[in-house]
Amino acid sequence: MSEKKYVIGLDYGTLSGRTVVVDATTGEIAAQAVKEYPHAVMDQSLPCGVSLDVDWALQHPKDYLDVLEETIPEVLRQTGISPDSVIGLSIDFTASTILPIGKDGTPLCMLPEFESRPHAYVKLWKHHAAQPEADEINALLTKRGEIDLPRYGGKISSELMLPKVLQILREDPEIYQQAHQILEAGDWLTLILTGSRRRSASMAGYKGMWLEREGYPGRDFLKALDPRLETYVEDKLSSDICPVGSRIGVLNETWAKKLGLMPGTAVGASIIDSHAGLPGCGIAKPGQMMLIIGTSSVQAALSETPYSGEGICGAVKGGIMPGYYALESGLAGVGDIFGWFVDHCVPASYHQQAKEAGCGMHQYLTRLAGKLVPGESGLLALDWWSGNKTPFVSVDLSGLILGCTLATRPEEIYRALIEATGFGTRLIMEAFEHAGPVDEIRACGGIVEKNPLLMQIFADITNREIKVAASEQTAALGAAMYAAVAAGPENGGYASIFEAAEAMSSMKEESFRPIPENAAVYESLYQEYCRLKDYFGAENPVMKNLKQIRQKTRNS
Amino acid sequence: MSEKKYVIGLDYGTLSGRTVVVDATTGEIAAQAVKEYPHAVMDQSLPCGVSLDVDWALQHPKDYLDVLEETIPEVLRQTGISPDSVIGLSIDFTASTILPIGKDGTPLCMLPEFESRPHAYVKLWKHHAAQPEADEINALLTKRGEIDLPRYGGKISSELMLPKVLQILREDPEIYQQAHQILEAGDWLTLILTGSRRRSASMAGYKGMWLEREGYPGRDFLKALDPRLETYVEDKLSSDICPVGSRIGVLNETWAKKLGLMPGTAVGASIIDSHAGLPGCGIAKPGQMMLIIGTSSVQAALSETPYSGEGICGAVKGGIMPGYYALESGLAGVGDIFGWFVDHCVPASYHQQAKEAGCGMHQYLTRLAGKLVPGESGLLALDWWSGNKTPFVSVDLSGLILGCTLATRPEEIYRALIEATGFGTRLIMEAFEHAGPVDEIRACGGIVEKNPLLMQIFADITNREIKVAASEQTAALGAAMYAAVAAGPENGGYASIFEAAEAMSSMKEESFRPIPENAAVYESLYQEYCRLKDYFGAENPVMKNLKQIRQKTRNS
Repeated sequence: MSEKKYVIGLDYGTLSGRTVVVDATTGEIAAQAVKEYPHAVMDQSLPCGVSLDVDWALQHPKDYLDVLEETIPEVLRQTGISPDSVIGLSIDFTASTILPIGKDGTPLCMLPEFESRPHAYVKLWKHHAAQPEADEINALLTKRGEIDLPRYGGKISSELMLPKVLQILREDPEIYQQAHQILEAGDWLTLILTGSRRRSASMAGYKGMWLEREGYPGRDFLKALDPRLETYVEDKLSSDICPVGSRIGVLNETWAKKLGLMPGTAVGASIIDSHAGLPGCGIAKPGQMMLIIGTSSVQAALSETPYSGEGICGAVKGGIMPGYYALESGLAGVGDIFGWFVDHCVPASYHQQAKEAGCGMHQYLTRLAGKLVPGESGLLALDWWSGNKTPFVSVDLSGLILGCTLATRPEEIYRALIEATGFGTRLIMEAFEHAGPVDEIRACGGIVEKNPLLMQIFADITNREIKVAASEQTAALGAAMYAAVAAGPENGGYASIFEAAEAMSSMKEESFRPIPENAAVYESLYQEYCRLKDYFGAENPVMKNLKQIRQKTRNS
Repeated sequence: MSEKKYVIGLDYGTLSGRTVVVDATTGEIAAQAVKEYPHAVMDQSLPCGVSLDVDWALQHPKDYLDVLEETIPEVLRQTGISPDSVIGLSIDFTASTILPIGKDGTPLCMLPEFESRPHAYVKLWKHHAAQPEADEINALLTKRGEIDLPRYGGKISSELMLPKVLQILREDPEIYQQAHQILEAGDWLTLILTGSRRRSASMAGYKGMWLEREGYPGRDFLKALDPRLETYVEDKLSSDICPVGSRIGVLNETWAKKLGLMPGTAVGASIIDSHAGLPGCGIAKPGQMMLIIGTSSVQAALSETPYSGEGICGAVKGGIMPGYYALESGLAGVGDIFGWFVDHCVPASYHQQAKEAGCGMHQYLTRLAGKLVPGESGLLALDWWSGNKTPFVSVDLSGLILGCTLATRPEEIYRALIEATGFGTRLIMEAFEHAGPVDEIRACGGIVEKNPLLMQIFADITNREIKVAASEQTAALGAAMYAAVAAGPENGGYASIFEAAEAMSSMKEESFRPIPENAAVYESLYQEYCRLKDYFGAENPVMKNLKQIRQKTRNS
């Protein structure tokens, strides 16, 4: 029994944490367990009742500890695996999801004196209330002529770390001052587990504007932003950065006992959740694009050369895989657009028919939409229900449907929405191709499993073969691979993430290949999509104007 | 009893004919009766089973006779009015709705030898299968530099008479040859009733390209179109044109008996159905715009000067009211867009809630939409579900919705669709204003009665007071006014349609006045609408391209 070696991967998502225990040799998932966060996303009020403004999105760090304490013992119990056959553990986490902690590592929000202070809590990646601070940073970078530096890449999103930190400083300076450190939640967990204050290069690079050679942004820039930020890096961050795939430390006695693992078990540096899917999909070289499709989508690819801008982060060498730049972007909305449509736009008769057919609404609409051929509906949509990331990085852009007639049917709109996300995906793929060709797509995520029509449409639109990861849990599996690297070959792991990905990943036999006649129609439609994209993104500010008018009416 | 004088107005719509009997002094409707056409619109096949191609829309002339024979006796029976107190009868009819007849006036389709020949039947106004012929006419007019002459006004629609006649000639020359005359259905009915072969100036002018001074298009032009058409006017038309509001003849013995009226009763020249609403709304001078809102809309206004082009017909002096030019246009779709939305885009939960609230879906959505203020939804639509008449005269244009987010709700889309038809209405009003200001709108039609929210939105968008006709049946009432003019003052009628309209029309007390703060927001939104209108109508051919792609996929 002790011959087989196992690794544990923890995947911290937006609403839950998932743990997998994986055979370190084959990559086979032996067991998994999921824990929903008891506090979920706090976007209305704190547990004590204090209200939150619009665009806030907080979490409670206690929930993250619950995931550790419940799911790890659970997977061990399920499998009967002995603790000494577990050689490593790694975490992937949403980012930039940050929290201020005290000197002993306790989150400030867990101290009674700060429990009613919103800024003491975890700011989730999708906390968008720091948009004014992001705007201010962009204005300063533009003024300084630095906005196009690889570090910044054209526009700073409010989802990054610095706008969130600046918001704390501006709105609750006492919290800023009391914070011994402000750090990514993933880094906080490795600190808790190992006592190591090193930070993940992945988190620092993609979300903290850290560059391998140059480090964090300089004092001069920070001072110009706010004099109190001049010593921000020294005061609140750690400049001891742990490369991706490295061992950040080993499990301490306290947590080994809590989790039922051996003290001294290797713990890897945390990694951004979506990035963990890259090795999870077996991507270890340029030319392959990862595509994770769920509520939104993530696209990533390795590259020999850096590329940033137009909503693409790709300036971090070794951010995902040592030696490579990794480009990252994605669509702001995919599954949530289809969900919106199903919730708000599908007539009663369809619900009846779906019920009679014994299937869910997505399945029913997909079935009807699958009978259409490309171009048959005459519809074209822009998939901007949640704004646009690439190329415009704007939450002011909005969704559009065009080509409606009295003959337009729900399944046609549904298909047009799928197609729009396919066009958006191709747009990002083509942006990636500035840094090198994309020959193949490797996909994973809930929708990939559930919707073969969407996969075929994406293959037709991108004109690329799409392979599907054998496991649905590529992020957690990827985390487990990093755990195996943190353990190292001497303990039954691997010397590099490349070796781990090679050994531990597998793809399904069946793939989606483009159908030439469909690809030809979609080529025409994509040209139309691009023209609309340029027009509404850059030429006619109508979407922004409508949003301003809307906000004015709501405020009056 | 015989002191009171009555007039009968017959309103022939697309699916039914309606008869009103009206007090000639007050305009009060004493009784009304409706008869649905037994054959409705034949767009799939003939009664004998012969299939029809797409875009065909035929009717059966027997249905029109049924309306006469059933509804007139019915209103007489309802009221107990004595035949000798009925001083006149007039008909309004859809146009250009044409049919070929034999020498004795019998429609060719009613002869056994032609009953299986589609071209022997009535071509309804919305028979769009003559689009190739319309295109050909437009190409010839463009080549000859005549397309912008007032007679043609920029673009010939396939709904006019000549394209339909040309289609008969091209596709079934025997029918063309056998036709003793080809005429508007309204003119055919007056021929049947009176024996008079004179034609209505309204029909000839608006639909037959006839001008008061110049007559029909010349031989030279017709010959260039097709050599067989050289003598079309002499062969198939009548050049004896009866001015609007004139007596075309008197009721003959046969039909007086059938209808239960007195032989010799005055019969007016037929008028286009939508035009009859103008006097029906009491409009007798420039500055007032008629707005009939139903499935689609009709807008008309009187003018001292001619104006044509951009989908507006307005070159016919005396076409509706003697001495005035009358401008006419309208939206290709209004109520049918809202109907489409309710049928295909409203979720089950709303149906449940409407049921619980005890109201229909339009009413329920209107109630929710009424709680929104202008601009609050952030949505903007182009109302082109059935194409655009003004200014682009194109069935290739299609509907658009913009500004969608995950927070968008059905009532917001519903309101955006109402607003889009309001913007389209304003666009036409502004085009009318090339010929003189519009100070006031007078509205009628089903939606006007049912939807006060729409009326208020239209008032806010146009920034004009909208008065509502007291009667819902303004077209039939208008026809009755023309009947009173045909009867003449010597018989208890009127000397002119102006006098008839003055005496017989009435408006509701309550009107819709623009609310300044709403008008201000809509002013901004209208500017955005116009920019989108120009872009999709003239700059980016995406809608046309999508339609072509769609047609290609359907044909393959």
